[in-house]
Amino acid sequence: MALDRLELLSQHGGFGGQQRFYKHMSAEIGLPMRFGVYLPPAALAGQRVPVVVCLAGLTCTEETFAMKAGAQRMAAQLGLALLMPDTSPRGAGVVGEDQHWDFGVGAGFYLDATQAPWSGHWRMESYLLKELLPAAAAEFKLDGERVGILGHSMGGHGALTLALRHPGRFRSVSALAPICAPTQCPWGHTAFNGYLGQDAGHHAEWAAHDASQLMAAQATPPYPAGILVDQGLDDKFLAEQLHPEALEQACASVGQPLTLRRHAGYDHGYYFIASFIDEHLAHHARQLG
Amino acid sequence: MALDRLELLSQHGGFGGQQRFYKHMSAEIGLPMRFGVYLPPAALAGQRVPVVVCLAGLTCTEETFAMKAGAQRMAAQLGLALLMPDTSPRGAGVVGEDQHWDFGVGAGFYLDATQAPWSGHWRMESYLLKELLPAAAAEFKLDGERVGILGHSMGGHGALTLALRHPGRFRSVSALAPICAPTQCPWGHTAFNGYLGQDAGHHAEWAAHDASQLMAAQATPPYPAGILVDQGLDDKFLAEQLHPEALEQACASVGQPLTLRRHAGYDHGYYFIASFIDEHLAHHARQLG
Repeated sequence: MALDRLELLSQHGGFGGQQRFYKHMSAEIGLPMRFGVYLPPAALAGQRVPVVVCLAGLTCTEETFAMKAGAQRMAAQLGLALLMPDTSPRGAGVVGEDQHWDFGVGAGFYLDATQAPWSGHWRMESYLLKELLPAAAAEFKLDGERVGILGHSMGGHGALTLALRHPGRFRSVSALAPICAPTQCPWGHTAFNGYLGQDAGHHAEWAAHDASQLMAAQATPPYPAGILVDQGLDDKFLAEQLHPEALEQACASVGQPLTLRRHAGYDHGYYFIASFIDEHLAHHARQLG
Repeated sequence: MALDRLELLSQHGGFGGQQRFYKHMSAEIGLPMRFGVYLPPAALAGQRVPVVVCLAGLTCTEETFAMKAGAQRMAAQLGLALLMPDTSPRGAGVVGEDQHWDFGVGAGFYLDATQAPWSGHWRMESYLLKELLPAAAAEFKLDGERVGILGHSMGGHGALTLALRHPGRFRSVSALAPICAPTQCPWGHTAFNGYLGQDAGHHAEWAAHDASQLMAAQATPPYPAGILVDQGLDDKFLAEQLHPEALEQACASVGQPLTLRRHAGYDHGYYFIASFIDEHLAHHARQLG
């Protein structure tokens, strides 16, 4: 499957490779979508390199991680392609889609909504897994078998849940300040109420998109080589929204190796991400081989 | 002299140091001004570190270089503080100040305007040299004798001209895609016509803010340890606005060592800057000692 009506929006030399931004018509979303891709020098030279999917947080676009995380330098060095999707459908015209910074536009939560009016377009999980990732791997001649996933905040939730919901699809996973237990926090409640329906009637669906609950339900450690999570201790969202301790407990309960690093003096933003992104990419490179 | 009414706007851990943003009341500008400063771990530990002034280009703010250049990693490693000024006064209320992206707000050109209505507030050269730099060095206990300056585009013009107009003030200078000959390009014409007066009657003032003309007028090489300039060859502004060959010729004429690197595949943006910023910081660290 090729990316329909693929259009190169811009292309920028970076660290011997290329940062590109594209637009295409998404069949899963039913709207045009944008994404970024960083191709390291090795990919431009014709090597079939592994790819790390980089999922951004609330309010971000496909450009945010590309512009602010400073990931290209190490990706170039390690020979990793980076795939940077947008964070939601845009231009759907759903009433209320742009009234909240933590719901609707810029807040797709990397799942398929089941509730009207969101279920028509808010299908980020299917979009990523069935459409963008395989088609981008084919388009850019990446190694579609060696795929890692990482993300920040809502994107960390996305990385962890997609990695757990699709066994075998990803070989490595890591997260920065992820929403570890959306069923227990305001951001998650807002998103799941809207996209999946009220908890009372949809308890199983909520649990199926909660990284900590997904992890606790594993029979064996799904990523035996280990998961890396970094968390800033000056992160103003830590206490109410992120709950890394829930993930920590879930990993411990199933024997999943987790390196959860708590960093004094770091907040929720991109200076935090930039400070640790090199180690995340090295983590993926090791596991992607 | 201390920074008047200094207010910390935000503070972010980064690479073991801190990226901070401040607001203060500028006596030179007559308005509140914002700036960013990156303090490397060595500075936080009490060392009197050298500082590199980082001047951004047209439309940028004090945040742009901080967010997009990826400079903090190497600054932390080398023990360099980074000072990131804004690109112009804001909120002056001068008629027309926000009607052009290349003149007025976001386009101060790092000079003191002599022409009304700009001369009241558009005093970026005095602001930087007499106010921000000395006061910031004192405030953050930086080594005010070991100061380098770099910049991008309009900020490259600023770095080169300030380094040439203030002998002895800066120990190292470099630029990325600088406007090398503003008297010969549309951006420079617009700025100098407005800030300095029409060329016909103000030829000497124009020349005094043109890096290539300033260089050509030197009796001896002002930076004998060398100047570093990087330029992308896919830069859409190269032919009309930047004129690195004029700087190259001027340096050659006075024996000023210049490393001017032309890079195929790189454009005018921050992916280009990020790709080479480490080498610029290393250049400064070597010369700052």
